[in-house]
Amino acid sequence: MPDIATIVDQIATEMRGRVQRGTVASYIPRLANVPLSRFGIAVVMVDGTVHVAGDANVPFSIQSVSKVFTLTLALQKHGDELWRRVGREPSGSSFNSVVQLENECGIPRNPFINAGAIVVSDIVLGDADTQASIAELLGFVRALADDPSIEIDLEVAQSEAATGFRNIALANYMKSFGNMSERVGDALTLYFHQCALSLSCRQLALAGRYLMLDGRAPRTGEQIISASLARRINALMLTCGHYDASGEIAFRVGIPGKSGVGGGILAIVPGIASIAVWSPGLNKRGNSELGTSALERLVDATGWSVFMPSGA
Amino acid sequence: MPDIATIVDQIATEMRGRVQRGTVASYIPRLANVPLSRFGIAVVMVDGTVHVAGDANVPFSIQSVSKVFTLTLALQKHGDELWRRVGREPSGSSFNSVVQLENECGIPRNPFINAGAIVVSDIVLGDADTQASIAELLGFVRALADDPSIEIDLEVAQSEAATGFRNIALANYMKSFGNMSERVGDALTLYFHQCALSLSCRQLALAGRYLMLDGRAPRTGEQIISASLARRINALMLTCGHYDASGEIAFRVGIPGKSGVGGGILAIVPGIASIAVWSPGLNKRGNSELGTSALERLVDATGWSVFMPSGA
Amino acid sequence: MPDIATIVDQIATEMRGRVQRGTVASYIPRLANVPLSRFGIAVVMVDGTVHVAGDANVPFSIQSVSKVFTLTLALQKHGDELWRRVGREPSGSSFNSVVQLENECGIPRNPFINAGAIVVSDIVLGDADTQASIAELLGFVRALADDPSIEIDLEVAQSEAATGFRNIALANYMKSFGNMSERVGDALTLYFHQCALSLSCRQLALAGRYLMLDGRAPRTGEQIISASLARRINALMLTCGHYDASGEIAFRVGIPGKSGVGGGILAIVPGIASIAVWSPGLNKRGNSELGTSALERLVDATGWSVFMPSGA
Amino acid sequence: MPDIATIVDQIATEMRGRVQRGTVASYIPRLANVPLSRFGIAVVMVDGTVHVAGDANVPFSIQSVSKVFTLTLALQKHGDELWRRVGREPSGSSFNSVVQLENECGIPRNPFINAGAIVVSDIVLGDADTQASIAELLGFVRALADDPSIEIDLEVAQSEAATGFRNIALANYMKSFGNMSERVGDALTLYFHQCALSLSCRQLALAGRYLMLDGRAPRTGEQIISASLARRINALMLTCGHYDASGEIAFRVGIPGKSGVGGGILAIVPGIASIAVWSPGLNKRGNSELGTSALERLVDATGWSVFMPSGA
Repeated sequence: MPDIATIVDQIATEMRGRVQRGTVASYIPRLANVPLSRFGIAVVMVDGTVHVAGDANVPFSIQSVSKVFTLTLALQKHGDELWRRVGREPSGSSFNSVVQLENECGIPRNPFINAGAIVVSDIVLGDADTQASIAELLGFVRALADDPSIEIDLEVAQSEAATGFRNIALANYMKSFGNMSERVGDALTLYFHQCALSLSCRQLALAGRYLMLDGRAPRTGEQIISASLARRINALMLTCGHYDASGEIAFRVGIPGKSGVGGGILAIVPGIASIAVWSPGLNKRGNSELGTSALERLVDATGWSVFMPSGA
Repeated sequence: MPDIATIVDQIATEMRGRVQRGTVASYIPRLANVPLSRFGIAVVMVDGTVHVAGDANVPFSIQSVSKVFTLTLALQKHGDELWRRVGREPSGSSFNSVVQLENECGIPRNPFINAGAIVVSDIVLGDADTQASIAELLGFVRALADDPSIEIDLEVAQSEAATGFRNIALANYMKSFGNMSERVGDALTLYFHQCALSLSCRQLALAGRYLMLDGRAPRTGEQIISASLARRINALMLTCGHYDASGEIAFRVGIPGKSGVGGGILAIVPGIASIAVWSPGLNKRGNSELGTSALERLVDATGWSVFMPSGA
Repeated sequence: MPDIATIVDQIATEMRGRVQRGTVASYIPRLANVPLSRFGIAVVMVDGTVHVAGDANVPFSIQSVSKVFTLTLALQKHGDELWRRVGREPSGSSFNSVVQLENECGIPRNPFINAGAIVVSDIVLGDADTQASIAELLGFVRALADDPSIEIDLEVAQSEAATGFRNIALANYMKSFGNMSERVGDALTLYFHQCALSLSCRQLALAGRYLMLDGRAPRTGEQIISASLARRINALMLTCGHYDASGEIAFRVGIPGKSGVGGGILAIVPGIASIAVWSPGLNKRGNSELGTSALERLVDATGWSVFMPSGA
Repeated sequence: MPDIATIVDQIATEMRGRVQRGTVASYIPRLANVPLSRFGIAVVMVDGTVHVAGDANVPFSIQSVSKVFTLTLALQKHGDELWRRVGREPSGSSFNSVVQLENECGIPRNPFINAGAIVVSDIVLGDADTQASIAELLGFVRALADDPSIEIDLEVAQSEAATGFRNIALANYMKSFGNMSERVGDALTLYFHQCALSLSCRQLALAGRYLMLDGRAPRTGEQIISASLARRINALMLTCGHYDASGEIAFRVGIPGKSGVGGGILAIVPGIASIAVWSPGLNKRGNSELGTSALERLVDATGWSVFMPSGA
């Protein structure tokens, strides 16, 4: 096997030449304006070495990838109480579907569909001030990545709020079942801000390190969450992290990952690597066309499937 | 960590004392008559050692666990053609639901729900004689387990056929979309016979060895299917192997598994172990109450989650 | 208002000139081969006068229109017991949908969707010999129309059986919920034969007279079914008679009617007229394009909506 | 047949003695506090005579019955344009279901389910000031009833707004499909106020007269809406007026009607009578238990089904 640095470079080179690059999300201007030509990749190894290629230092809107961090924060703060309000099963339907909620009394199927992430935001918010809560989440992500320069793109947050009728619908729908606090609007504000977190591939891969380390912070060794919860978040990413293509990705790629409509994907190889890929063009299922393809290449080249015999 | 033999014994002892044992499936007499007190476990390690406890040598009806073997046989014979007729996503609904078929043009969501397994039976059948096809499947399972004494319980097969209206409905429904051959009845006959395969935990764990060995037969080293396909079957087991509790099991247990209504579960730790557990009492989601619990204990005691950092 | 004879002639003339005639059903040869140019209309007035135009004497496959007659026979034989096995609500989904059955424990929404009509066939069949039961239904329709020459087209019945996988699925699906007798196959045979009833517009309008006469036979005055049941069948035709366009037809036409995939429609103006129209081209919702249009014209010209002030 | 006055009195007497009276809606205090003992009935004949009994002069919250008047106003102002944004089919699901919207691109199935009525409110609102629009609707209903004392119960309107999360969800959901104007909040305000219209049975039956008169105002003869539209509103009431029990009511009662969660029902016998009944206890389907029963009695006693042969 060639070394990782070489593999990462080869992947970036191959992706640069790709013609079929998917379609950029167009529902808000900031996303619509990202050039389709962008591609970045960052791989942080368990020993701390970082391999990057392409546009790995360009910040992008991580969108739904942020759901991993908000879930971690909510579990850290409130523990398994959370699972009374959100399930752990693949949804079998699209990320913003309301059908499942109607059939299951307003309990979202998992924390990675929009409805589930809105409930998680409501839990993170608790009794706190909305701005304080946004600041807490931003601080948490900065600490995970060891990078205080990470920001929330307020224009994106505002666009999300101005066009987020479906999310407003989901939140009010769950409220009608009693699965939201009184503060529907505030929880949505937090939700729209988390979607607007802006990270580069490098920053995102760094922020994900605790998930390859059984929940530990890389420098201090402190448990950000328990090993058991870290494994469980990885399990959720594998079964639910790519919308209604999660099964397909588990089948083809075989490592936990969470994708976002901005074209980013965070993927974890437990004990080995934290990976971020980014390219704004999406395939039909809403996952990054090149990002998915790059992960597939990486796993093919390294054998990093969680389903490979260890040490194979 | 205590050695595996001790862990296996402790689990069997604990399960013997359990009061809450679920409910035995009652739709056919042969299943209904299995004593609720039964519990068996077998663990085959990668080096070939076998650890058993409880009723590990008592044959039981493996039911849906057989879907793993039929899928393997179909992929061995026909390769990726199969995926044009069946999907790879968790279904998000119950194992015998027809709703998903109506919304998706008769293509079952995955090969482990009933509709998907019936299509796989249709593919295995091909142009062959029905009895020859049943014999081929039985021979395949005997070879996997290195045990020519494995049988199909014909009374069970007959009962399945006599009560299988929902499966008959699913098959005809898919036929109406063109996703079954002319031989609907024959494919169902094969399907009902595969459900009636009768194996003990020991036999089942032995039959599953190729899935921990990247597709290789343990004695000969021959690739029963490619490493890539073996990993992919494991991925499918993780995302879809426990009906609509698959996400929950991935979350709690964290290893690929396939359960059956007879109370058996086959679970795989890639590169490490092939495991079979059995206890006839089912929980609300249709998975073995004690079997699931035993797997959770085993993984807790050994750290065998696919989401653990390797070597942790 | 011009007299009915003139109106009927004018409608036939207008329909002859229509270019947009819909699409002929093609799933069985006998239907596929009917010329798109056909159009017939027959109006039987309460005083017994009959007005016909176009191809009013050409027999066609009445298909689902027959569901009205089977329902009448079932109610005549078994009364309100029937409603424990089939509902009275519009389905809100397509005529052969299985989704509703899954959500409502195998009880079809109404007797005019396929699943409901299959249950009604099962009720009519009861313990009788299948051929005797087919003969009974044929005799019943002949008696209603005072015409012993009416036949079942056996080629159509055979084609229905050979291609009716979805109906076989529906029947077995209901059986799995206990809503079919043991004789699933026989009930389907009766069902396929009733769909194959072959009547001309004249014969069909004559057969429908009891529905404009509060359930009485026109010559003898005998109650074929009670006045109350006759009104209720009319209500069902209005709310459920045109598949998932029933509301639209109630809105536009405003009289009870039942359509079939052969292009025929039976429509009733209580106390005034029994009407049959036929043209094989279907619109997107599966109702006769010209037939629907002709009924709309007829109602516009005569004011025969059940929602018009009486005597207006 | 006894005269109407006697029939109306007998019905009120019978209903007074009824033990099984259903359950009062409890989601807002004003509705929850209405005594279960209430029952009123008013019948306005085509000649203008009015027959009342029981609590016929006690105002109640007409709730969804108001959807008939808002629809009439919208059709009067904007005509058939309306049907591009709302369908005319029975919904086949519950009055506040969102599933149908997801499957049909945000177009509600008919104007009498909540989503449909919210779209109609949005149409009535147009570019007008919200308060002016509420005043316009109130003025319209007062004019229909010839009674300037009719009011909107502002406490009810406020409670509806404070608890109407599901309606807020529906509106935002339709907005996400582009089927609401920018003024989601204002349209909801109008909607919540129309639900809070407070009328007695006498006032409600008077307000409904135009529907028995082919759209004409009783005193002036002026067409409030065209005869054709009046008939079509009656058709919609018959097919969609009682939530998912509409088919059942059409079957049992056989006249157009629209019910509300306050326990009121407006029912129309074209050319003969406009009827209002009220009793706050609801059955399982959300329709007034005694109101439905009273209508059934009235129709049995008078033969007023639209499916009876005229003059029978």
